[in-house]
Amino acid sequence: MTRNALYAQSGGVTAVINASACGIIETARKHNDRIGKVFAGRNGIVGVLKEDLIDTSVESTDAISRLRSTPSGAFGSCRYKLKSIEESRLAYGRLIDVFAAHDIGYFFYNGGGDSADTCLKIARLSQDMGYPVQAIHVPKTVDNDLPETDNCPGFGSAAKYIATSTLEASLDVASMAMSSTKVFIIEVMGRHAGWIAAAGAMASSAEHPIPTIILFPEIPFDRGRFIDRVRDAVSSSGYATVVVSEGLSDENGRFLSDQGLTDAFGHKQLGGVAPALAAMVMQETGYKYHWAVADYLQRSARHIASKTDVEQAYAVGRAAVEMALEGENSVMPSIVRTDNDPYRWEIGKARLEDVANIEKKMPRDYIDASGYGITRACRDYLRPLMEGEDYPAYRNGLPNYVRLQNVSVPRKLDTDFRI
Amino acid sequence: MTRNALYAQSGGVTAVINASACGIIETARKHNDRIGKVFAGRNGIVGVLKEDLIDTSVESTDAISRLRSTPSGAFGSCRYKLKSIEESRLAYGRLIDVFAAHDIGYFFYNGGGDSADTCLKIARLSQDMGYPVQAIHVPKTVDNDLPETDNCPGFGSAAKYIATSTLEASLDVASMAMSSTKVFIIEVMGRHAGWIAAAGAMASSAEHPIPTIILFPEIPFDRGRFIDRVRDAVSSSGYATVVVSEGLSDENGRFLSDQGLTDAFGHKQLGGVAPALAAMVMQETGYKYHWAVADYLQRSARHIASKTDVEQAYAVGRAAVEMALEGENSVMPSIVRTDNDPYRWEIGKARLEDVANIEKKMPRDYIDASGYGITRACRDYLRPLMEGEDYPAYRNGLPNYVRLQNVSVPRKLDTDFRI
Repeated sequence: MTRNALYAQSGGVTAVINASACGIIETARKHNDRIGKVFAGRNGIVGVLKEDLIDTSVESTDAISRLRSTPSGAFGSCRYKLKSIEESRLAYGRLIDVFAAHDIGYFFYNGGGDSADTCLKIARLSQDMGYPVQAIHVPKTVDNDLPETDNCPGFGSAAKYIATSTLEASLDVASMAMSSTKVFIIEVMGRHAGWIAAAGAMASSAEHPIPTIILFPEIPFDRGRFIDRVRDAVSSSGYATVVVSEGLSDENGRFLSDQGLTDAFGHKQLGGVAPALAAMVMQETGYKYHWAVADYLQRSARHIASKTDVEQAYAVGRAAVEMALEGENSVMPSIVRTDNDPYRWEIGKARLEDVANIEKKMPRDYIDASGYGITRACRDYLRPLMEGEDYPAYRNGLPNYVRLQNVSVPRKLDTDFRI
Repeated sequence: MTRNALYAQSGGVTAVINASACGIIETARKHNDRIGKVFAGRNGIVGVLKEDLIDTSVESTDAISRLRSTPSGAFGSCRYKLKSIEESRLAYGRLIDVFAAHDIGYFFYNGGGDSADTCLKIARLSQDMGYPVQAIHVPKTVDNDLPETDNCPGFGSAAKYIATSTLEASLDVASMAMSSTKVFIIEVMGRHAGWIAAAGAMASSAEHPIPTIILFPEIPFDRGRFIDRVRDAVSSSGYATVVVSEGLSDENGRFLSDQGLTDAFGHKQLGGVAPALAAMVMQETGYKYHWAVADYLQRSARHIASKTDVEQAYAVGRAAVEMALEGENSVMPSIVRTDNDPYRWEIGKARLEDVANIEKKMPRDYIDASGYGITRACRDYLRPLMEGEDYPAYRNGLPNYVRLQNVSVPRKLDTDFRI
C-alpha cells in the first residue's frame, strides 16, 4: 500500500535546504512501492493550510538532482508559526483535513526550532484525530542553534562564506592600510547566537594571523574596551577587521543597530550595526573605515557552499525518508560527530520532544577570555563544518541554478482557510 | 647587459591584480639575460619614493605562481597621486634617483587612469634627466573606466561576484516574498560609472527573469518613478531586487548616501545609499525590505573570479614585460575584443597619451529606455568578461592564498623623502 508524502520548507532559507529536499525526493522515488507522490507546500506550511500543494512527481530526475546545488527554497518558504494546539486548533484541524484529502501518510518539515515544535504537534494531533501521520523533522538553520545535533545544515556554508569573505576583505585592507582604510567592519547574521560571527575568526590562523575583533551577541558591548582593542590592532598590525553580529547589544540589552537615527526630515531610520560602529570608530579614533553588510548574501551563497554541509543536508533528507519507512514518528535525523581528526560523522536520531523550542547557544568556552575571539575548541568544532568545496555548474558565467515547474496539485477540498 | 625592473601596485586593489604581478615576474624570470631582479615598491609608489623596495627574487617559483590566485595587493598599494611635473618636481626627481640607485631600467605601474598619467610623466622626465627608464602601464580597475581597452582586469571578477550574489539573494527573496521580505537592495561600487551595477542585471535572463531595478550613477534619481517601479515589480513578480550604485545622485548631483543623518546625540552619521533607499521604500510602500552593502567583498572575491579576467590580468602583465623587451616605452598593453560569439580577444597596445586621465563611461545605449535596466548590447559586452571559473586552492575550508616574505632591498641612498 502506498501513501503520499508532504514536504514543506520553513523559515529563513539557506544555501543547502534544497539539498535536503533533493535527499527526500530522490529517496522517496526509490521507494515508490511504499511512497506514492511527494507533494510540497507552496510557500511552506501556509500552502498546506491553503491546500496549495505542488506536485514534485512531474519534475524530471535531472531537475530534482539539480536541487542539490541550488540555493533558496525551491517550493517557497514562510515565517508562520502555529501556536499551541488550544490557540491554533482550527489550523491544526485544517492540516489534518488536507492530509486526509491527499492521502498523506508522511510529513517532512524542513526548518528550525519552531517547525520542530509544529511537527511534534502534528504527529500527536493526527493520532488524536484518528488520521495518523508520521511527522519527521528535517533540521535546517544558518543560526546553528538546534539542540540534539552536532550542527545544523545551512550553517557550514554560511560559515565558509563569512570566513572566506573576512579573509579576502582583510587581505584587501592590509594592502592599503598604510595610506587608506584602517578599520573594516563586516556585519553578519545571528540575532541571539554568535556562531556565524565566530566563523569570521576562522579567517585568521596561527600561520597567517589577521587582527580580527569579533563582537558576539553573547557578550555585552563595551564601547571603551572595543575602541582600545581597535587602537591596539591598528598600532600593532596596521589595521583591524571587525566582525559584528547583527544582534550585538549593550549591557542593557539594547541592540546597537537601534541607534535612534533620524534623517534631515526627522524620519526615523533603521541603520545596521556596522555603520553605527563605523561612526563610533571615526569619532573616537579618526581612522578611515569601510563597512559591509552581508545580509542574505551569506545564507544564499551556494557558489561557495561547504561540501560537508551539502552532504549533511542531503543525508538528513535521505535519513528522514528512511526513518519514516522504518515506522518512526516525531523524530529528527541529527548529525553526530564521531571523530574530529580526521573528521567523521554519522546520522543519529533525536526525539522531537528534546528538540522543539530549545535554542542552543555558543558554549562559553568557545569564546576566548578577552571576549573578542574564539578558542581552540571552537576552531576544532568549526573547521570540518566549513571543509570541502561543492561547486554548482555554471552557464554564461553564472551558476546554473534549477527553477522547478511547481505545478499545482488539483484541490480536493471545497473549503477555504484564512491565514 | 641586464637592468633591474621595478613593479608597483596603485590605487584600489582587485581580485586579480596579483595575477598581473605574477605575469610580470614570471615573464621577467624567463628573460634573466636582460632583466636582472624585479623589485616592488612596498605600498606602491610611496615605497619607491621612500626607497622602501621589496626583493621579489627571494620568492620561490611556487610562491610567485600562487600570486595568480591570490586577491589584494601582495606588495601593498596606496592612493597617492603625483601632480604635474611642476608641482611634484621633487617627487619625480626622487623617483629617478631611486631608479638610478637600483639600476632600474624598466618600470611597470599597475593601476588606473591616475597611474597611467604618472607612468607617462616618469617616462618623459627620466629622458629629460638623462636616466631613461622604459615605463609601461599595466591596466587594473574594478571600475572598468580606462579608455583604449575593451575592458579592465579586475572588473570581470567584480561583475561575476555581483551578478552571482544578486542571483542568489534574489532566489532567496523570491522563496519568502509571500510572507516576508519583498524588496531587497544591494549597494555596489561605482562612484561615477555604472559598470558594476549593470552586472547586477545579468542575474536576470530571458529564460529565468528576475525583477531587477538597476540604479545607475549616470541616471539622476527620481524618487517617484523609482517607487512606482518597485510597486510594479512587487505586484507583478511578488518581489523586487534593487541594485544601486554607491554613486547614485539626485538631479542636483547630490549623493543619495549623503542623507544628513544624525544619531540620538546629534552626531552626523555616514549612511550608505542602500539603507537610505530602504527607508524610502518603507515610508512609501510599507513593504518589508532587507539591504546589503558588498563593499570590499566585491573587489576581493577571488573565490569566484572570472576565468577570462584572471587570464587577461596575467596576459597584460606578461605583455608589459615583452613590450619592454621590444624597446617600447610609455605604452599600456590593452585588451582587444576580436570576436564576441565565440568570444575571442588578443593583446593590443595603447599609447599612454591616449589613456592618462580619461574616464570611459558606460555608453548610453547600454542602459535601456527606462533607465533601470541594460540593453542587449550591454549583455553581449558583459557576458564573456564574467565567463569561466578559476578556483583557488583550498586548505582547511578556506582559500589558501599566498603571503610573500616581502624582504626589503638594502637602501643605497642616504637621503630620506617626506611624503
